[in-house]
Amino acid sequence: MSFDSIRAIRWENNRLLLLDQRLLPQQQIDVVCTDVAGVADAIRNMVVRGAPAIGITAAYGLVIAGQLRFAQDKARWQTTIAADLELLAKSRPTAVNLFWAIERMRGLIAGLPAQQDPAAALLAEAQLIHRDDIAANQRMGQLGAALIQPDSAILTHCNTGSLATGGFGTALGVIRQAYADKKVTKVFADETRPWMQGARLTAWELVQDKIPVTLIVEGAAAFLMKQQRVQWVILGADRITANGDVANKIGTYSLAVLARHHGVKFMVVAPTSTIDMQLASGADIPIEMRGEEELLQLGGQRLAPQGVQAWNPVFDVTPATLIDAIVTERGVVTEPDRQKMLAMMQKSDS
Amino acid sequence: MSFDSIRAIRWENNRLLLLDQRLLPQQQIDVVCTDVAGVADAIRNMVVRGAPAIGITAAYGLVIAGQLRFAQDKARWQTTIAADLELLAKSRPTAVNLFWAIERMRGLIAGLPAQQDPAAALLAEAQLIHRDDIAANQRMGQLGAALIQPDSAILTHCNTGSLATGGFGTALGVIRQAYADKKVTKVFADETRPWMQGARLTAWELVQDKIPVTLIVEGAAAFLMKQQRVQWVILGADRITANGDVANKIGTYSLAVLARHHGVKFMVVAPTSTIDMQLASGADIPIEMRGEEELLQLGGQRLAPQGVQAWNPVFDVTPATLIDAIVTERGVVTEPDRQKMLAMMQKSDS
Repeated sequence: MSFDSIRAIRWENNRLLLLDQRLLPQQQIDVVCTDVAGVADAIRNMVVRGAPAIGITAAYGLVIAGQLRFAQDKARWQTTIAADLELLAKSRPTAVNLFWAIERMRGLIAGLPAQQDPAAALLAEAQLIHRDDIAANQRMGQLGAALIQPDSAILTHCNTGSLATGGFGTALGVIRQAYADKKVTKVFADETRPWMQGARLTAWELVQDKIPVTLIVEGAAAFLMKQQRVQWVILGADRITANGDVANKIGTYSLAVLARHHGVKFMVVAPTSTIDMQLASGADIPIEMRGEEELLQLGGQRLAPQGVQAWNPVFDVTPATLIDAIVTERGVVTEPDRQKMLAMMQKSDS
Repeated sequence: MSFDSIRAIRWENNRLLLLDQRLLPQQQIDVVCTDVAGVADAIRNMVVRGAPAIGITAAYGLVIAGQLRFAQDKARWQTTIAADLELLAKSRPTAVNLFWAIERMRGLIAGLPAQQDPAAALLAEAQLIHRDDIAANQRMGQLGAALIQPDSAILTHCNTGSLATGGFGTALGVIRQAYADKKVTKVFADETRPWMQGARLTAWELVQDKIPVTLIVEGAAAFLMKQQRVQWVILGADRITANGDVANKIGTYSLAVLARHHGVKFMVVAPTSTIDMQLASGADIPIEMRGEEELLQLGGQRLAPQGVQAWNPVFDVTPATLIDAIVTERGVVTEPDRQKMLAMMQKSDS
């Protein structure tokens, strides 16, 4: 379809290529990963970010790991690869897709016949995870776009697009679909401090795909809503708990409170791999804290004076009660709660 | 008193010195103004910012103007200076203190005897405006600090300190006083996009004065409140209308909605020169829009891709209903409305 031209994770010539999101939009350069440490570094250092993209990247990382471990020791590779599974699992603490993808690959690895080259089976599984993610995004795009009335303007946060996923995007996939369906007149993107994913990545994706986009500072979102310039806030999730609470990029909870105050609708778009039914509520989600220097510096230069501290949580938790709709590839949950989430999870993929 | 070491506007050796706030905290350099165009440029280009500081700067600018116009034409200087009054009035559109200071100087100028050197009278008036501002800030500091319970943490926004005023500050003056009174344990400062006044200026002032300060991105304010880490939001105003609505730095309205949602108290601190009883409500306040490049660039480098737009209002409007207290030098108005604001304005300075 139109408005969908970007793929940031590519397996080519037996190598993993990751479009370096730290350099966008000024430079489009791939990082080439040839070992697991390189993949873990790429995740940790945010060459790749976005919960689904991290999971897919880890899956490809385990293709590389399987090849190397098998070459080292054909008899014991299924044991020695445990260190690689651990290394990848520790690369980012919050994204449940990472653990989901690793567990799926771990299950495959355990079931493979001993002493046989696992490369083809591992690659097939990673590519299936990747392809399924894109298909899930396209399905979510359809389901989410169906909720939007014509002539709507959308506010989004962080980056949930082709860069954050296998392709097409979650929240940005809904926006792509709704724009293709001529329901969306305009997209506002929060610049998303401190990493500026909105200004750098979401803006870049939308410009690439010729969807009109206007940047705002996060402090302007409430004033934008007050002026009735947006009808929906649509964003992604890093983790969703059994009751429908959502952990997502810092600033999400703020937008949810502001949207409810102004009667603006609030939609979370995420694949079911993001949903952790083992966690009862958002209070159980560990929140990653990142370094103070992300706030104390700007563009590599010291910004704040010496002597100041910074509080830099990467994610916040939005309670289900502030969410109008959670859109997954299995369906839409409006006004989410534990029962509705469970019913949705028990559906098979359509 | 302690915790009050900074003066950013200084009249020395018949010259106006302005601490260049665009360069803080990396460099402490004064801009020397020797003509009115230079003063207007300094205001327009934000060498000096903050509503009270702009008013004081304009008053000193008219001291320079009076000297130059009198030197050019002793008979007609009170007429020819009209162009200077106009130029200064156009340097920033929103700050009512600017117009207030200009009108006060205009009144003085009109009443001065013709053909006599006005330099001393103009300087005395500008210095009185400056001194009165500091005294008003100290008075507001006392009144505001009295509202704060011991063991409170404060969130502030933008810069309302010695840099934004004649000295001591409005909201930051309350914070200084409350810290001196040992009521405040900690100050959180919003970094305040896009100009980063919090990260650059408020953090610098507080570090200079040895008050502990922790920076946050604006998107984190809601999450901070949810965790009950702050008891008060305290910030300034660029203009207050007759009903108690407040125009202030973009992001203020957002904090007011979030504070109310979380039961956090919300205090606006501003001298009565900020209050425009001619405007019925915030709907009547013109909102300055600034250039898109402030969002599209970062640290002088292009950040966002070509083809993206930006919406960059400098101020927003917070309705009186979301404000717990407006603190002026004449007294405190809790739960402001038109009647209470009028009663406060009719009090004489105590």
